Amino acid sequence: MLAEIITIGDEILIGQIVDTNSAFISQQLNKIGVQVYQITSIQDDRKHILTAFKEASQRVNLVLVTGGLGPTKDDITKQCFCEFFGDTLVEDAATKKNIAHLFEKYFQKVPTEMNLAQALVPSKATVLLNEHGTAPGMWMEKDGVVFVSMPGVPYEMKHLLTGKVFPKVINHFKRPFIYHKTLLTYGLGESSIAERITTWEDNLPKHIKLAYLPSLGRVRLRLSSKNIDEVLLKNEVDSYMEELRLQLEDIAIGFEEETSLIDTIGSILTQKENTLSVAESCTGGAIAEEITKHAGVSSFYRGGIIPYATELKTTILGVDADLIQKYNVVSIPVAEAMALRANTLFKSDYAIATTGIAGPTKGDGDDEVGTVCIAIAGPEGVISGKFLFGKVRERVIGKSVNKALEMLLKEISKN
Amino acid sequence: MLAEIITIGDEILIGQIVDTNSAFISQQLNKIGVQVYQITSIQDDRKHILTAFKEASQRVNLVLVTGGLGPTKDDITKQCFCEFFGDTLVEDAATKKNIAHLFEKYFQKVPTEMNLAQALVPSKATVLLNEHGTAPGMWMEKDGVVFVSMPGVPYEMKHLLTGKVFPKVINHFKRPFIYHKTLLTYGLGESSIAERITTWEDNLPKHIKLAYLPSLGRVRLRLSSKNIDEVLLKNEVDSYMEELRLQLEDIAIGFEEETSLIDTIGSILTQKENTLSVAESCTGGAIAEEITKHAGVSSFYRGGIIPYATELKTTILGVDADLIQKYNVVSIPVAEAMALRANTLFKSDYAIATTGIAGPTKGDGDDEVGTVCIAIAGPEGVISGKFLFGKVRERVIGKSVNKALEMLLKEISKN
Repeated sequence: MLAEIITIGDEILIGQIVDTNSAFISQQLNKIGVQVYQITSIQDDRKHILTAFKEASQRVNLVLVTGGLGPTKDDITKQCFCEFFGDTLVEDAATKKNIAHLFEKYFQKVPTEMNLAQALVPSKATVLLNEHGTAPGMWMEKDGVVFVSMPGVPYEMKHLLTGKVFPKVINHFKRPFIYHKTLLTYGLGESSIAERITTWEDNLPKHIKLAYLPSLGRVRLRLSSKNIDEVLLKNEVDSYMEELRLQLEDIAIGFEEETSLIDTIGSILTQKENTLSVAESCTGGAIAEEITKHAGVSSFYRGGIIPYATELKTTILGVDADLIQKYNVVSIPVAEAMALRANTLFKSDYAIATTGIAGPTKGDGDDEVGTVCIAIAGPEGVISGKFLFGKVRERVIGKSVNKALEMLLKEISKN
Repeated sequence: MLAEIITIGDEILIGQIVDTNSAFISQQLNKIGVQVYQITSIQDDRKHILTAFKEASQRVNLVLVTGGLGPTKDDITKQCFCEFFGDTLVEDAATKKNIAHLFEKYFQKVPTEMNLAQALVPSKATVLLNEHGTAPGMWMEKDGVVFVSMPGVPYEMKHLLTGKVFPKVINHFKRPFIYHKTLLTYGLGESSIAERITTWEDNLPKHIKLAYLPSLGRVRLRLSSKNIDEVLLKNEVDSYMEELRLQLEDIAIGFEEETSLIDTIGSILTQKENTLSVAESCTGGAIAEEITKHAGVSSFYRGGIIPYATELKTTILGVDADLIQKYNVVSIPVAEAMALRANTLFKSDYAIATTGIAGPTKGDGDDEVGTVCIAIAGPEGVISGKFLFGKVRERVIGKSVNKALEMLLKEISKN
């Protein structure tokens, strides 16, 4: 049981957008035991689409297609499906009604002819109604291979995939269970880790795959396997993972779960009835954004301040100007003072503070680009660290966010 | 002259990471006149890699491969290249020296045997030295098709691509010029736009492609073409784009240039010697993060405050508590007061303020999820708006950021 994802759209091939749909679809397919064999991005071009359909049908049993379903002339996916399946377009009454309903609700107007043309579908297709948009999903079969067509708009696709496509996939295909477990580590490079676990890795059974994923100061180690028996599968992978974790106990910070680091932090803080604030200089809101993009954070998150200009660290946040003068704005004492002041200002229990030089140009002091001081202030006192995160602004900010959240998690997990 | 990008790595096919490399490579290739025909993501699997190489060599003249070059056992790209080209691995002296140098500089230690194995390359390959990492780039040819292998780490790949790969591509292939120009519009759906310009679109020459790209409250309209004569090409596309812009003058906000919206805002503010601050409630730092991820913003950006908890809007930002009581925290008067107070607190000339319900759960007031009030305060006074941005948290935040920056750009462009 293998799947292929085909994303259609010139915007992907000229690099105007990043294809995030494929990662979401792959993740979700894995959860229901479907392995993605290949992801193929192609142009809005009739010949190219037909060739890709044919090739995919020779590789896999399930082809998930996104994109090319808009009302405008550049979108031709439906026409290609008709050609591939020897079919013609007919009007789907339920979709037509849905389009009229959406237009009435959101725009208080009647759909035009062009809008209503989105209700045309190949006659052999099973229509998967899209309540969140005007382009319907479609399910078609040919020579034992299932093709599913979905709109490219991420949130419409997500609803259709999990709500309409998956129930049919689960019903239609016999699937094994697929299981991945990922250990998060920090502080050691991938080859150093590999050397430490080389004997263990050599003895890993062939059907369990180990992957190394280095990124922004962390290395993630993933074990993957599949089996028709879910309990056996999980027990086996979990037990190898436990062996791995024990060998790397000094650098392991936990597993990458369904829940994110913010969810973990949030549930610990909520349980302790503690609150959090941030005072970000060099990260400029990236930590705050990482927190607030998760729903439900208002139970523990108070807010934050971004004193980007140096003087604001004094005028608004209330850090002693002499301290900045004496130690320089990028320093441990200033980071610690920022965190302490944030707790006072925001009436929070814990605060994260960052001050550093994200680059590409150097600041006023002697420190080089990539220098970042991070402090966590909490009921037990203040912890802090000074780090060197390289020369690339985006990576300096990303590594700072990761490190700050790791430090916070460690601190709140203490007692 | 066509290219294919092959990204190798199980982490892409199980959705553990989003493939951002392909978008970057595609964008850059377009700039030097190379059209990307297809993007293919495949597994770290010998048979799969060899099949993908063979298929790509039948479709295009240039195959750019990323990933699978790490020091650990799960990475097998180099071995596959040897098999595909009938070659064997030999040690590259310059790469070996580079690895030793990087270990000395960043870790103050000597590389192990596993690290040094990254200096092994196929004997027929032209090595492209990677100063930013231990895995070298490689350039190989077979039957007139060029294969380039690069590491998957984005910043290493970026340096190698533009610094080492492109000079060779430019030298090796005859290429036309490719030109895209994209108009940003807001306030009208794609089908409404399509209906307005239908006659014009029908008369567009076949060699100029029009694409509609709807996203988070904006529709982008892209014209694309290619030609061996660069001046002719740009003149032609620009003149059709000007016709398009005139037809959509009421909803057009400008072109999507090389520079971002933040760069445009930054250069206007810097020229006016004006400064900016933000006071973000429902966007929770997303506007600040969007600003500070760009280098050089300290010339106009003062900083920001995120009074996520309602009382902080009064205690820290200084918004009148009675105003919040009277109008509710999500209201135009509160948004306007937040923006005005931010200018006072941060000593800035312009301030953006947001207050709203990002969801998924409703706030205290009567307003539904997705309600957002945005205000811009500046020397000329305050402008504001109340919007409904749907039910999905991520999209509510994204649309708020877009709308706030659009409002700011409009306001600072006034005089």
